[in-house]
Amino acid sequence: MKRPLILVTNDDGVNAPGIVALYQSMCSIGDVIVVAPDKHQSGKSSAITPSEPIRLHLLRKEEGLTIYACSGTPTDCIKMSINQILGRKPDLLVSGINYGPNTAISVIYSGTMGAAFEGCINGIPSIGVSLCTYEPGADFFYASQFTQQLAEQVLSKGLPQGTCLNVNIPNGIINGVRFCHQTDGLWKEEFVKRTDPAGRNYYWLSGYYKNNEPENEHSDEWAVNNGYIAIVPCKIDFTDYDFLNNYKNLNYEL
Amino acid sequence: MKRPLILVTNDDGVNAPGIVALYQSMCSIGDVIVVAPDKHQSGKSSAITPSEPIRLHLLRKEEGLTIYACSGTPTDCIKMSINQILGRKPDLLVSGINYGPNTAISVIYSGTMGAAFEGCINGIPSIGVSLCTYEPGADFFYASQFTQQLAEQVLSKGLPQGTCLNVNIPNGIINGVRFCHQTDGLWKEEFVKRTDPAGRNYYWLSGYYKNNEPENEHSDEWAVNNGYIAIVPCKIDFTDYDFLNNYKNLNYEL
Repeated sequence: MKRPLILVTNDDGVNAPGIVALYQSMCSIGDVIVVAPDKHQSGKSSAITPSEPIRLHLLRKEEGLTIYACSGTPTDCIKMSINQILGRKPDLLVSGINYGPNTAISVIYSGTMGAAFEGCINGIPSIGVSLCTYEPGADFFYASQFTQQLAEQVLSKGLPQGTCLNVNIPNGIINGVRFCHQTDGLWKEEFVKRTDPAGRNYYWLSGYYKNNEPENEHSDEWAVNNGYIAIVPCKIDFTDYDFLNNYKNLNYEL
Repeated sequence: MKRPLILVTNDDGVNAPGIVALYQSMCSIGDVIVVAPDKHQSGKSSAITPSEPIRLHLLRKEEGLTIYACSGTPTDCIKMSINQILGRKPDLLVSGINYGPNTAISVIYSGTMGAAFEGCINGIPSIGVSLCTYEPGADFFYASQFTQQLAEQVLSKGLPQGTCLNVNIPNGIINGVRFCHQTDGLWKEEFVKRTDPAGRNYYWLSGYYKNNEPENEHSDEWAVNNGYIAIVPCKIDFTDYDFLNNYKNLNYEL
């Protein structure tokens, strides 16, 4: 049987420990092509690079594993892979393993998930995976083993067209796996204001997450906070069909 | 009656003709605060800037109109507005008027819509508006007048929590307004490869849009291609609830 072709990327950069653990585990189930940013690209969402040239560097090529660094965003990496690198559509895309959670509304800012969305747009079964810790020297081994298991399930059983998976793995003892919805909540930003030597102000983005449904056992925040791996199926069609079916009730006059 | 407070931003930059037409029209219905990128930020999606300092410059302050330039992304502009500039939550956010369409899957890459999503996350009724042309010297007058009319409707009748509007206005004769779904399709990238004087390759992102449902009269692409203003209601909850209700049929073993 032909080995599956697996495209691997991330947003922490091609040398981040999370992606190394990820592509090593993926090599045991398929032929792996890594195309990942040449530097940190966290918080890049689905950003693309239309106004700057993009560079691509082959870092490594051996039986079953090829690694490229790309100067663009995670989404650029996927576009470059499909258009310039891969001879055929890959059987699976796995993005991660991200350093830190991408639960709740963080899915919208995440470069890890931006890459998964891009794979999904291109008809590739796609998964984004995050480890819920910022601890230096965090161990990605368990997370990579779980991702391998999930990847095998996705390869054999598929995903619905237009849907990708946002997977968040707690750092510690795991009680199980839960399919969840994206938690309702938001980041409350508290910019930190500093002053440079010329007396001009500048600001650092900071903040904390405010959960609007902390007790909801079907939400991804509840899951990871209670030791469960959270899997949120995410759609690339953002349309609010309930609104379309009911907007006449709003009596907009246009 | 108290005048509404309207937050205005875009991704083409604070001096782009589309935002000037927009804030001028908004001034006739409310007090306007413009917080927009100090440079072109197209294709930035919902990207944020966690690793660079952000600068803010007051450009203009007069009765009913205040304008700031911000060094960050469109999403950063909204976060800065809410946290550092505005004393209270604005009654409305309008992002645009973008130069070029943000129909179909382009909603996911759009900085204009990234800002509208950020407003929506923060509970502000939010609209992103685009004019479907790249023609130099395009006239944003009609688009700004329509946006004013829509803004008045949203101010008086509201939007559902968690839903913002993606508005695309054809450039030419208008046949009417249609509420639509996000067209199914994708950008087929055709990177243009060039070689620098040192013999190294680089790539420019290029491509064309492939519409998977060109005849669907309920899609936003059909609408704008047939002279209708397309309004797509977009959700910030990306969860695929159909999947959650049916995933057991996939028989994932985890």
